[in-house]
Amino acid sequence: MAVAITIAGSDPSGGAGLQADLKTFAAHGVYGLSVTTAVTVQSTVGVGHVHPLAADLVSAQLETLAGDFAIDAVKLGMLANDAIVEAVAAAIVSLDLPKVIVDPVMLSSSGARLLDADGVSTLERELLPHAFVVTPNVPEAERLARSTIRSLSDVKRAAEAIHRLRPHAVLIKGGHLEGNEAIDVLFDGDEMREFRAPRIAGAAAHGTGCAFSAALAASLALGHSLVDSVDRAKQYVTGALEHRLTLGQGAALLNHFWALY
Amino acid sequence: MAVAITIAGSDPSGGAGLQADLKTFAAHGVYGLSVTTAVTVQSTVGVGHVHPLAADLVSAQLETLAGDFAIDAVKLGMLANDAIVEAVAAAIVSLDLPKVIVDPVMLSSSGARLLDADGVSTLERELLPHAFVVTPNVPEAERLARSTIRSLSDVKRAAEAIHRLRPHAVLIKGGHLEGNEAIDVLFDGDEMREFRAPRIAGAAAHGTGCAFSAALAASLALGHSLVDSVDRAKQYVTGALEHRLTLGQGAALLNHFWALY
Repeated sequence: MAVAITIAGSDPSGGAGLQADLKTFAAHGVYGLSVTTAVTVQSTVGVGHVHPLAADLVSAQLETLAGDFAIDAVKLGMLANDAIVEAVAAAIVSLDLPKVIVDPVMLSSSGARLLDADGVSTLERELLPHAFVVTPNVPEAERLARSTIRSLSDVKRAAEAIHRLRPHAVLIKGGHLEGNEAIDVLFDGDEMREFRAPRIAGAAAHGTGCAFSAALAASLALGHSLVDSVDRAKQYVTGALEHRLTLGQGAALLNHFWALY
Repeated sequence: MAVAITIAGSDPSGGAGLQADLKTFAAHGVYGLSVTTAVTVQSTVGVGHVHPLAADLVSAQLETLAGDFAIDAVKLGMLANDAIVEAVAAAIVSLDLPKVIVDPVMLSSSGARLLDADGVSTLERELLPHAFVVTPNVPEAERLARSTIRSLSDVKRAAEAIHRLRPHAVLIKGGHLEGNEAIDVLFDGDEMREFRAPRIAGAAAHGTGCAFSAALAASLALGHSLVDSVDRAKQYVTGALEHRLTLGQGAALLNHFWALY
């Protein structure tokens, strides 16, 4: 059985965070490990409080898992602050972890800050050079590329700018742009590819970014190519959105197991 | 979709703790919520470190979830210390949470202390009177009943003693006793029932207790009777043990999704 690890915050509601990542891994038949970076208080209505853990507690979890399991892929989600970004980047290098997918989580859908400003700089400088893929949404891509994105050609220019931070590849998720299609753009330094899916009307659900990057990590852990993995991740998230659940008072929840039951 | 919540520690390896509970809920088609009580550093080899969270951070997670979701059942696992037991007991009463399954976790399979001594007293005094079922293994039942257990009749006497702490029902898991069968005993104050399953040779896996109580909570959340839920939970854990995975250097891991793939 392939093994993937998520390094992310805890979302008690299970819509996002490491809980959503573990469900996504399980839905792909991949065994999931998890390193908790922060404990949040949140529900479908929004994020109330973020409690980051000590950076050495984060590294200790990761080192212990890497010493015990053969890890096929790594997904990084919410890292909360500069100290945790630095500790995770150092551990990734020293443990020589493969297929590192960086979801550069900065803000929650409801607007809560999930990474401090120093953390963003450290992520750019120390983490992205070790990333196999970085998966920003449009607001995150604007921050990383230091540009405004309004059109598909802006997305492509931002992908080129972010690629200069030295990840192997950049995948910008187009979900936040207008239009009938959600267009994602993948750039590996050579080729610029577009991935199109119909936009699902009224389907605001938090945690789509978490599910996408976790699905990407799961397919890579299973040995699929990067292009196939992006395709599969996009289909997975589209299905989870189509089968979304309304269980809380706020945002809908993805149905991570839509293909199984 | 039925909703169950686990209040438990984080096990990064996913074999036990809230990660295993969430997988168990998902395998039953139940939506899972989770309140983190403590972050552990552990692998399949054992528990290295336990970092309990502040009691008010535990209550805040639980109150936020209970304000947002209609909860059908609650499973309590590792509570780590006295302050957390007290906070959880108070929240259960004030939020009037239904079907509370208390897994009185005290020691890990590898011998690490997972609840302090004051915590055990507070659990007996403030939590068990609000429990629908308490699910000790033999060492935990010995502590709660203040007696030594060597035989099936010792188990039954212990069940009666623990029932005097006023849970609705007591379920003692016989997995730690010798014999060809794993015999669990359920006592609700009226009737003493035995549940028998063949012992699986060589099947030491950590997290069987977590999976059992989570499966019980899931079946209760789905509306099954207590007796049916115990039956189903026993079958579920037996299957997960039969399909166990060897991915780490230490104990085998349950395959929580054995019935799905």
